[in-house]
Amino acid sequence: MINELELRKQLLKMGNEKIAYFGVPGSYSHEAMLNIFGEEADAIYRESFEEVFKVLVEGKVKYGVLPIENSSTGGITDVMDLLKKYDCYVVGEKCIAINHCLMGIDGAKLEDIEEVYSHTQGLLQCKEFLEQHKQWKLFDYYNTAKSAEYVKSSNSIHKAAIGGKAAAKLYGLNIIKQPINSNKENYTRFIIISKELMSFENSDKISIILNLPHVSGSLYNVIKVIYENNLNMMMIESRPIMGMPWEYSFYIDFEGNLKEERVKKAIDIIKEKSADFRLVGNYKKDM
Amino acid sequence: MINELELRKQLLKMGNEKIAYFGVPGSYSHEAMLNIFGEEADAIYRESFEEVFKVLVEGKVKYGVLPIENSSTGGITDVMDLLKKYDCYVVGEKCIAINHCLMGIDGAKLEDIEEVYSHTQGLLQCKEFLEQHKQWKLFDYYNTAKSAEYVKSSNSIHKAAIGGKAAAKLYGLNIIKQPINSNKENYTRFIIISKELMSFENSDKISIILNLPHVSGSLYNVIKVIYENNLNMMMIESRPIMGMPWEYSFYIDFEGNLKEERVKKAIDIIKEKSADFRLVGNYKKDM
Repeated sequence: MINELELRKQLLKMGNEKIAYFGVPGSYSHEAMLNIFGEEADAIYRESFEEVFKVLVEGKVKYGVLPIENSSTGGITDVMDLLKKYDCYVVGEKCIAINHCLMGIDGAKLEDIEEVYSHTQGLLQCKEFLEQHKQWKLFDYYNTAKSAEYVKSSNSIHKAAIGGKAAAKLYGLNIIKQPINSNKENYTRFIIISKELMSFENSDKISIILNLPHVSGSLYNVIKVIYENNLNMMMIESRPIMGMPWEYSFYIDFEGNLKEERVKKAIDIIKEKSADFRLVGNYKKDM
Repeated sequence: MINELELRKQLLKMGNEKIAYFGVPGSYSHEAMLNIFGEEADAIYRESFEEVFKVLVEGKVKYGVLPIENSSTGGITDVMDLLKKYDCYVVGEKCIAINHCLMGIDGAKLEDIEEVYSHTQGLLQCKEFLEQHKQWKLFDYYNTAKSAEYVKSSNSIHKAAIGGKAAAKLYGLNIIKQPINSNKENYTRFIIISKELMSFENSDKISIILNLPHVSGSLYNVIKVIYENNLNMMMIESRPIMGMPWEYSFYIDFEGNLKEERVKKAIDIIKEKSADFRLVGNYKKDM
């Protein structure tokens, strides 16, 4: 596991760097940001993944914090696609345990609920619980905290939100039931992005994104390079390429530090074999 | 491309097999089902992916039709996860061009719209158009056709749905703007599932799902088997394994027919190397 203080010290060199996190106060991303940068962090929030990337590339903040993968539902592919679109780097990661609560206004009981608001991931992660209440209308809302805010503002005992305890606390909602996530081993991995590539002595994970020529064996040849250089592949996610039906980009994580010879060699060969290649980052893993 | 009549003839041996499709009348899945099985098909519909699997394994229908991948937004991972959960096979596939319309009741104009209803994929596929109207509230609704039905029943000029022409026609809505999908090269691949494994002379695509032991090189060793037996890998999708954070299942498609020696050999070796292996199907590709 990651040493949070060490990470904070590495990133906050000046001590006054501005941060943008995805979501709103009370969201899991907010919790991740506080965890990484501390309570005294100078942070703003943006309500879409893309807005976090935008304020970063515009230079308004030094770092961005966004979710990239959930251990139960998989990769957050929108964020992966944005990492390909914007010229920025992953400089760190932090895993947060996600335990969802069903929350409503004062007096709202389980039997009153008719509508449930949460982020797509929140709804997905509570699928089994929600399937026991098939009469509920489910609404895919901006994020978990905004869902809590909306339920509070509606002042209706028929509406509930799914989110974290922090959101319930911030918006003054009661917890009707918790935890309601299907899988109690439920973590979200958050990334810290920056305009600069920052690699430290203790960085031990590398992320790359590549397009491959549409020929047989092209993915095999890339994975072979990783394997033959004794590098451990941690994750691979395929993404469609816009306008090229049934062709794919690959987002790959493997262990290593950019200073290592085997890593330099592997990256050089993979670059050659790719139609399009981007080094996304070299950072300390937290898993 | 697939010969639809040939596929229909292969599957509808008795001519009276019952079919269940995902969604409701007017959905893209309905369009795919009609395309495969014809207007005279004896079809029912189910409003969740899992319900289609359930009526199939219970023997209430012979075939199920569901979307599994979109060429712009990627794999429909819920369906992949259900293919792993339920004991059934993919016996065919059909690609459908997806062109989305923004539709509303009589008199609703673009400037009246405040709320937009569609399936997650519909919202994702029209992201650029929707971003030009940031004031709209987006609701992730059951499916595109049900979104159209809801907008019709609301009788409000402030609500709009995103879906296909068929849905607009079926529910008597006007098309306000079309096509609104970001990518005009937008296809969804639908699968036909059955309780029996059905492989035909012209089947040229194999789907497998496997878990891999959590050791370095395990995915490399599987892809190597495919490559070394001269088989072309068409798609790979990684999925999390519930309760085992940061371990993955892989859903892999490759070209071949189960009668071929190279295919038998490859499958035997992959089975040995996997912690868990399932042959999902051998069918005629449509891409």
